[in-house]
Amino acid sequence: MERRVTVRRPILRYDGEALGMAEDEIASEYALTVWVNDEEFATMVCTPEHLEELTVGFLASEGIIRKASDLSDLTIDESRGMAYATVPSAPAFTRDLTHKRYLTSCCGKSRSFTFYNDARTARKVTGSVTLTVGQAFALQSALQEGSSEFRATGGFHNAALCRPEGILLTRADIGRHNALDKLYGRCLLDGTDPSSLVIAFSGRMSSEVLLKAAKLGSPVLLSKSAPTGLALDLAEELGITAVGFIRGRTLNVYSHPERIRV
Amino acid sequence: MERRVTVRRPILRYDGEALGMAEDEIASEYALTVWVNDEEFATMVCTPEHLEELTVGFLASEGIIRKASDLSDLTIDESRGMAYATVPSAPAFTRDLTHKRYLTSCCGKSRSFTFYNDARTARKVTGSVTLTVGQAFALQSALQEGSSEFRATGGFHNAALCRPEGILLTRADIGRHNALDKLYGRCLLDGTDPSSLVIAFSGRMSSEVLLKAAKLGSPVLLSKSAPTGLALDLAEELGITAVGFIRGRTLNVYSHPERIRV
Repeated sequence: MERRVTVRRPILRYDGEALGMAEDEIASEYALTVWVNDEEFATMVCTPEHLEELTVGFLASEGIIRKASDLSDLTIDESRGMAYATVPSAPAFTRDLTHKRYLTSCCGKSRSFTFYNDARTARKVTGSVTLTVGQAFALQSALQEGSSEFRATGGFHNAALCRPEGILLTRADIGRHNALDKLYGRCLLDGTDPSSLVIAFSGRMSSEVLLKAAKLGSPVLLSKSAPTGLALDLAEELGITAVGFIRGRTLNVYSHPERIRV
Repeated sequence: MERRVTVRRPILRYDGEALGMAEDEIASEYALTVWVNDEEFATMVCTPEHLEELTVGFLASEGIIRKASDLSDLTIDESRGMAYATVPSAPAFTRDLTHKRYLTSCCGKSRSFTFYNDARTARKVTGSVTLTVGQAFALQSALQEGSSEFRATGGFHNAALCRPEGILLTRADIGRHNALDKLYGRCLLDGTDPSSLVIAFSGRMSSEVLLKAAKLGSPVLLSKSAPTGLALDLAEELGITAVGFIRGRTLNVYSHPERIRV
């Protein structure tokens, strides 16, 4: 059973003069509960497509698996919104740590990390890739044009894995972290190494988004939107080039500018 | 100690011709861990202001308190990012349920709820208020104009509690649910009843945002952005008028249109 990523609904539209009946295309919102070794681990609210990628990427992002083969089984029950993962190597205590804050003694390494699992799974990015500002503009506009089926709803975040010359893979989701987890899951399932690839992203660059880029291992993050201060601290620390406010013919390079040239 | 909601950082800006040194104003991102009765309950990533409101609104939203006086003590340690709440009436098992999925037997009431605590705390909205499309346009544009100190960063969501005639209170946060929790907390602290007030919001209307409006008890939610399908199912069920895509002189009414007139 294929679930629809959008639904059509009757609405009232005010067109500047009167309220009239109309129909609108709305982004679906779907709940997927992930079970690890028969224990309820987390529920994600997401766009119902690429659920295998999403689950794999999410489990890697949370530090439950490192590679797709750490999963001895993954069964997705779409109609009930359940993903059952079997991970023989998963520590029994994992779930308790997921959203525990990571408290450092003061000024050691990883001072910027908030959550325990992030401190365990985000590594300093070592891959190298450089791109021109022209390539950054082209990737960002390709990301926006490529999302035509979703553009009507205005309800999606888009994330793409790119070479400097063009987009390789795009994923969309109502949750921005989900769009990145889908990319991550696809890379793990295919054995793709993102360490010389660029991520183009439609949403804001929060610390969470930056950490996802680091977990993927991608050294450049492009966005049309703004970053947060903590995201930029993490970008510095994790070796990621964060480029934001890519709009028209201007952009900002916030960290590790050595990978960007005119 | 007053924490800054924005920070200034050196960046490289490409202005269409060359990359040059510049300075940018960036939204701060701050972690606040909430403890309930000496147990770590949750960590929020937020904008560091109005932390008391945020904690009170969050605890109410999670069903830990119903009114401000359910808190016998609330101590906020800003420098360490900790909020210590004492809630004599809090059930010991609360934390375990927070992000547990709410599984219904099939087709009873509350079929749209995903999380247990939401099913416990979101009630059908009964308050009445009506507004004209002109008032909706005016409130949405006042929301955007009123956020000038944040507008530069592009990194904030804004939420306002309004009468049809104008805004009463605005809160901003990097997290959209936090902006709404700050409004909720302020209402609880002041004893304000939002049941005849309108919420104007800058972000997308996800199920989470809709549930926050229902928890507040506010019957109308205005946004310049798109809704999701689940948010609209909830809006129907909870009696909330959801108005989206308020842009220029057009808007969409998605649910309970009886409160909107030309």
